[in-house]
Amino acid sequence: MDERTQLPVLGMVGGGQLARMTHQAVIALGQSLRVLAESPQDGAAVVAADVSIGGPADAEALAAFAAGCDVVTFDHEHVPGELIEKLAAAGHVLRPAAAALRYAQDKRAMRRRLGELGLPMPRWRTVDSADDLVEFGVPCVVKTATGGYDGRGVFMVEAVDDVAALLAAGVPLLAEERVPLVRELAVQIARSPAGETAVYPVVETVQQGGICTEVIAPAPDLTPERAREATDMAVRIATELDVVGMLAVELFDTGDRLLVNELAMRPHNSGHWTIDGAVTSQFAQHARAVLDYPLGATTPVAPVVVMANVLGGEPGGPRLDERLQRLLSLDPEMRVHLYGKAVRPGRKIGHVTVTGDDVADLRRRATRAAALLRDGV
Amino acid sequence: MDERTQLPVLGMVGGGQLARMTHQAVIALGQSLRVLAESPQDGAAVVAADVSIGGPADAEALAAFAAGCDVVTFDHEHVPGELIEKLAAAGHVLRPAAAALRYAQDKRAMRRRLGELGLPMPRWRTVDSADDLVEFGVPCVVKTATGGYDGRGVFMVEAVDDVAALLAAGVPLLAEERVPLVRELAVQIARSPAGETAVYPVVETVQQGGICTEVIAPAPDLTPERAREATDMAVRIATELDVVGMLAVELFDTGDRLLVNELAMRPHNSGHWTIDGAVTSQFAQHARAVLDYPLGATTPVAPVVVMANVLGGEPGGPRLDERLQRLLSLDPEMRVHLYGKAVRPGRKIGHVTVTGDDVADLRRRATRAAALLRDGV
Repeated sequence: MDERTQLPVLGMVGGGQLARMTHQAVIALGQSLRVLAESPQDGAAVVAADVSIGGPADAEALAAFAAGCDVVTFDHEHVPGELIEKLAAAGHVLRPAAAALRYAQDKRAMRRRLGELGLPMPRWRTVDSADDLVEFGVPCVVKTATGGYDGRGVFMVEAVDDVAALLAAGVPLLAEERVPLVRELAVQIARSPAGETAVYPVVETVQQGGICTEVIAPAPDLTPERAREATDMAVRIATELDVVGMLAVELFDTGDRLLVNELAMRPHNSGHWTIDGAVTSQFAQHARAVLDYPLGATTPVAPVVVMANVLGGEPGGPRLDERLQRLLSLDPEMRVHLYGKAVRPGRKIGHVTVTGDDVADLRRRATRAAALLRDGV
Repeated sequence: MDERTQLPVLGMVGGGQLARMTHQAVIALGQSLRVLAESPQDGAAVVAADVSIGGPADAEALAAFAAGCDVVTFDHEHVPGELIEKLAAAGHVLRPAAAALRYAQDKRAMRRRLGELGLPMPRWRTVDSADDLVEFGVPCVVKTATGGYDGRGVFMVEAVDDVAALLAAGVPLLAEERVPLVRELAVQIARSPAGETAVYPVVETVQQGGICTEVIAPAPDLTPERAREATDMAVRIATELDVVGMLAVELFDTGDRLLVNELAMRPHNSGHWTIDGAVTSQFAQHARAVLDYPLGATTPVAPVVVMANVLGGEPGGPRLDERLQRLLSLDPEMRVHLYGKAVRPGRKIGHVTVTGDDVADLRRRATRAAALLRDGV
């Protein structure tokens, strides 16, 4: 507890854009996020006042960090479960707990658990040898069970032999059927330690090359029944897995049914639209949930909200400052969020959001804005 | 220019809540506000990464600070004009310039200039001796020409003798007629160095004991003609005074006409509603204006937006953390902004904002929320 402000001290392990936007959000709650960043150049480290440097598996750095916080939460899934458990055993409050976070860290554990709950998902199996893939059948999707995010660790496998190199690397793998999709959806839900939940409207996520490029809130043309089905699944997963904080449930929409794709137990790219598009942003909501505060309204502030990710473009061309000015001049209603990162091709360096009522118009404007920041023209 | 982010470095002199909320806003522009704070405990100093310590009249501290910024702007009016001019002469970019800021620093200069422009305002005169007040007539309002804000430096004078103590203190004074008011209004306008302006809807400000307690956007029952009159005045003042950044024009509405009360050349309490209530907040807009970026849309995001200031209450009772939780539980749609200050009776420690379409309901909820944070019940 900060005696001067009479408010608890919230810490986040990881200093990326999620921590950056969480810091931005919690300033309104009278807070200043404590950040454990890997580098002083991390997106959150360059904007927050209270920054320690240390890696996510550095037991000493984590212990020192936790000692200065009332509640510790996470910007990513990279803190080993045993470290989280050790800190919890020492009396520190870490949310979500290791027992929940495990299902966002290990896709095999997640698939097993969802199977026990009878939740719909793609057919899958663990892959410990090429024979497992023969039995499973190709083409299929092979994923590393741990460490993957943003399309990394996901491989489209056409032939059994393709898995040899992955197996040789010694990483635990799983295979999933390649599901014929109509589109991808996502649900954001917050859950407090006491079990209060708050669900955001179901959104559509548009992917290109395994990377999310656009999010449309709410998902267009979603029947109320299908929206209810997605929401119920999110509540069930958050509750059964004892998630505290934000949970993102990524879904495949096959046209006939919804299948659970991935889980993330933190603010997630598919929820960035909430900053400008909902009464309570997912970042403020995550803080409220892990601090055991009452949750905020998840109501959208406009009929349609579209978010587009800004990727770094090829070197050369106008500087980011000039690109930004061009964009602001082109569309005075566009909300821009830059992450303070050095620009590298393909790297997520920010996002843009626009609100209104015409999906096609908003998508056109958001993708135009993102392209302008990426390409400079 | 920050070579890593390819973005300019923006600095703000003063570390109060305006700098705190500016920092929060410019994080989205890829920035981290450089702050020159008087104390490491200032509201902005506890949340920003790049903080120097120095007073607003400390020439050395200001010069060192300006040297690290592409553009310097201000959280308050306390930097002496001659220091600003000296830094500008040395090649630094300070916005607004001393020549404009002077009219927000010195109420005599402001009144004279508005008089030259033929703008409507209360009858006034300088007060250098008690005789001046005899001639002017009492009861009247006596103000210190410099250094007043938030109701400080404003005195209701019933008898000529009452001014003796003020004159003895040696501060320059002016007297203004006590205007019979229907209500007070305010206009926020942004202006860029090239003269682009962007005006927010005219708001009503509710004062108690000289302190703003509530802001209603847009001002209820304002005729389009009167709104146009207020807006035209704001554009004229911003343009004629060569303001760069945000300008707040506080107005008296006498029922028959509008009179200019005060000017502020920075984000202002009467514009806090824009954080949650407009496409572009006044803090983002101020940054865009002083960075010479294109200005953002000033469109409200809801039919009605009500902001209420949170004042510190009497000592005792529940801690701020508990008060905050009570409020969040009571009204999940309320947006809370706490300034990270130690609580002292009467001190502005935050504000709340709520959006919707029923003025009476929103005012009731906002004032209830502010009272709960103040009194704990």
